[in-house]
Amino acid sequence: MSISIISKDEDYSQWFNELVIKSDLAEHSAVRGCMVIKPYGYSIWEKMQAALDKMFKDTGHSNAYFPLFIPKSFFSKEASHVEGFAKECAVVTHYRLKNDAEGNIVVDEEAKLEEELIVRPTSETIIWNTYRGWIQSYRDLPLLINQWANVVRWEMRTRLFLRTTEFLWQEGHTAHATAEEAIAETEQMLDVYADFAENWLALPVVKGKKTANERFAGALDTYCIEALMQDGKALQAGTSHFLGQNFAKAFDVKFTSKEGKLDYVWATSWGVSTRLMGALIMAHSDDSGLVIPPKLAPVQVVAVPIYKHDEELQNITAFVKGLTKDLRAKNISIKFDDRDTQRPGFKFAEYELKGVPLRVAIGSRDMKNGTVELARRDTKTKETVPQEGLAERIESLLEEIQQNIYQKALKFRDENITPVDTYDEFKRLLDEKPGFLSAHWDGTSETEQRIKEETKATIRCIPLNNPQEEGKCILTGKPSTQRVLFARAY
Amino acid sequence: MSISIISKDEDYSQWFNELVIKSDLAEHSAVRGCMVIKPYGYSIWEKMQAALDKMFKDTGHSNAYFPLFIPKSFFSKEASHVEGFAKECAVVTHYRLKNDAEGNIVVDEEAKLEEELIVRPTSETIIWNTYRGWIQSYRDLPLLINQWANVVRWEMRTRLFLRTTEFLWQEGHTAHATAEEAIAETEQMLDVYADFAENWLALPVVKGKKTANERFAGALDTYCIEALMQDGKALQAGTSHFLGQNFAKAFDVKFTSKEGKLDYVWATSWGVSTRLMGALIMAHSDDSGLVIPPKLAPVQVVAVPIYKHDEELQNITAFVKGLTKDLRAKNISIKFDDRDTQRPGFKFAEYELKGVPLRVAIGSRDMKNGTVELARRDTKTKETVPQEGLAERIESLLEEIQQNIYQKALKFRDENITPVDTYDEFKRLLDEKPGFLSAHWDGTSETEQRIKEETKATIRCIPLNNPQEEGKCILTGKPSTQRVLFARAY
Repeated sequence: MSISIISKDEDYSQWFNELVIKSDLAEHSAVRGCMVIKPYGYSIWEKMQAALDKMFKDTGHSNAYFPLFIPKSFFSKEASHVEGFAKECAVVTHYRLKNDAEGNIVVDEEAKLEEELIVRPTSETIIWNTYRGWIQSYRDLPLLINQWANVVRWEMRTRLFLRTTEFLWQEGHTAHATAEEAIAETEQMLDVYADFAENWLALPVVKGKKTANERFAGALDTYCIEALMQDGKALQAGTSHFLGQNFAKAFDVKFTSKEGKLDYVWATSWGVSTRLMGALIMAHSDDSGLVIPPKLAPVQVVAVPIYKHDEELQNITAFVKGLTKDLRAKNISIKFDDRDTQRPGFKFAEYELKGVPLRVAIGSRDMKNGTVELARRDTKTKETVPQEGLAERIESLLEEIQQNIYQKALKFRDENITPVDTYDEFKRLLDEKPGFLSAHWDGTSETEQRIKEETKATIRCIPLNNPQEEGKCILTGKPSTQRVLFARAY
Repeated sequence: MSISIISKDEDYSQWFNELVIKSDLAEHSAVRGCMVIKPYGYSIWEKMQAALDKMFKDTGHSNAYFPLFIPKSFFSKEASHVEGFAKECAVVTHYRLKNDAEGNIVVDEEAKLEEELIVRPTSETIIWNTYRGWIQSYRDLPLLINQWANVVRWEMRTRLFLRTTEFLWQEGHTAHATAEEAIAETEQMLDVYADFAENWLALPVVKGKKTANERFAGALDTYCIEALMQDGKALQAGTSHFLGQNFAKAFDVKFTSKEGKLDYVWATSWGVSTRLMGALIMAHSDDSGLVIPPKLAPVQVVAVPIYKHDEELQNITAFVKGLTKDLRAKNISIKFDDRDTQRPGFKFAEYELKGVPLRVAIGSRDMKNGTVELARRDTKTKETVPQEGLAERIESLLEEIQQNIYQKALKFRDENITPVDTYDEFKRLLDEKPGFLSAHWDGTSETEQRIKEETKATIRCIPLNNPQEEGKCILTGKPSTQRVLFARAY
């Protein structure tokens, strides 16, 4: 394994690819656009899943599982939904292979499906078709369900974690008696996502609403959290949709209210995916490798012995054993790397690449002095500290590191939200100082579309609780009442 | 919701279907052969996953994720593998839909894949193609990986949980330097499965090897755990395969040994699926509903208040609050059902249907006397016990229930393993007293096949550590050295 990767200033995109592959997070598979998530990458995803799953359950949701396949006719029932997904979906047409006359394995044309099946790109249609049987009365509402699943979208240009043909995600699908309750759910789940992004991923996000152009196919309103990557491009990290009665109408899901009135049910859906892995990597890592917030690090502490003689190693091992016990009691994971096939310097570089938050190096002199050397991954600083009270020291340092990674990302993000008042300045900044550009817009899809075509920047969101301010659209000069956030995005 | 279900003695198969649906575990979906796992069913599956996942990690395995799709050419590389799965696989042929001239959504023939993709029925081929890049030297071995995933097998006859087109499972795929290590891994994972079945599912199993006829497509040896359902039919609850070097040869995965020799890698794979849900239900449940072992019960204890006046309810509520706190401290889940829309009798029947292991009923007289009524789901016995020390009492009762469910299933299983020495008796018993029939067999596939065709009974396994015994094959009279277990099976 070669440890060095290209500098992110030299080629950010190449840096990201090399980092993902060399740090053993994931790799391309033999199937176009599909990735293999390797054990190290998957263990971070598992930590994300566990934290999110608990947050979903704490807010009253249950998990369930719906079919991978969606009959083509279902898919077509909600007009804007099929419009949004039809052009990028995997279609199952046959259910058998056979040997042809030459002994080759070929599709058996006699086993053609009467109706084609779509591999789910998202599950609104199959789920709402199911909900019809589950909902009769207001007593069946709210219905609060989440699914952990794989989905497939046939993307033309793919990138590890950020945009893959198959990806892993969770999709919440809830049903409510009133529009107000559904909107409250949509907003609650956005808050859950923002909370998770900030407190686990150490990733500051802007909460906002999408414009009509950027809405989920079938939604009345799409809420989102938007984050800023180190190259100044934005990344949509999660979305929560208010679907109105669109899917209830498409699948005829009605309920009897307390007052005995029959009405269509109100819906939400919300999801985050393995894309968050991409956000995590791009937001914090550096030229030495990954920087993983301690709360998501598969290994939080690594201990490396530095010794010449076997009896030195024995002493160090005994010490690390005690430390391990103390840390486990605090729910902190530690790995002792006593391989004799690699030198300490190599190990240091390897754990930097892998983003282990804290490194403890223990040499013979340390053992004499009752000290160890602690090295932080986030700041790359080292200090010599006493062995006494080390577990407590590590515990508080891990909290400090989690905070510091967040604060650093927050500072970067805030320094890269720039108010812009003219289109010339807008275009100049997009090249010279990319980031979020806060600008007035006349509210029309035409203007949004023209700006996108001319600059590749899109409206990332209309921030929630946006201050109202009189102004003029940067493109058309028409009156505007608020600024929105533009950026080039992943 | 109608609570009553058909008696299992009247129609076991119908009883199973009604039970699965009425207890809210799962239902058929609109997609042929695919099921929807409902929240109650999924929460049992989550508990199974958590327990198994910990056992896999404790034995050194890591999770990873590989693509859903397998290129047809990969699928064909291992001859017996493709033979085994080609006839029941979903094939993706296109990657886009479009609107036709009439505005219908149809498959876009211009978006035809160059090579068809198979929706994985199992992942040996895609995984071993990936392992080629991961394994160079003995230092890369053993490679111990597990995947939690959905798989698709186009079954002609499907049944909820037992045989569905799509199902959820885990599949372990390991790589080793020697045949001995691979066989040891195969046997270790069989032990893990047996341990899980007995200690979590409360399901006694026979560990054994499959005959050549019943082996996994591509394996040199298939180990299995076989369980007995209440109707006397057997159910294969898990398999662990020694794959030899078959997949390493098919995908050219070689390694350099310590001695510098180049050799193909040795493989295992092993899996259990949502089929275990079917086993759990069929092994323990009765005509009143599910019987769930406490370790897997989503709700372990339900408390039902019995009262006339609101102040009585207030007292009971205060008591249950205290009990809840005590039980939570012991990691025991409790639900307080204080709905005023249903009578206690209805609730009792509902929780019996759902298999909640323990019911606590508290009436006004109980509050005066300092007692509660405890009802066990497994034995359907009730007793009045003091409120003092109730949490401890519940804790030990739950352990007793777990044990009792196991012992009952064990007794049933042992009473239904019958030695048989003639083919006439064999056929008679299959109809009159089905179960495992322990009989001599001449060791040939032909005999096995003929018995299967004539009686629908298959050799479930050759038990491990089988006592050697001289005898004659029940069909051919040829000499045999050991008895094997026959049964009709799910």
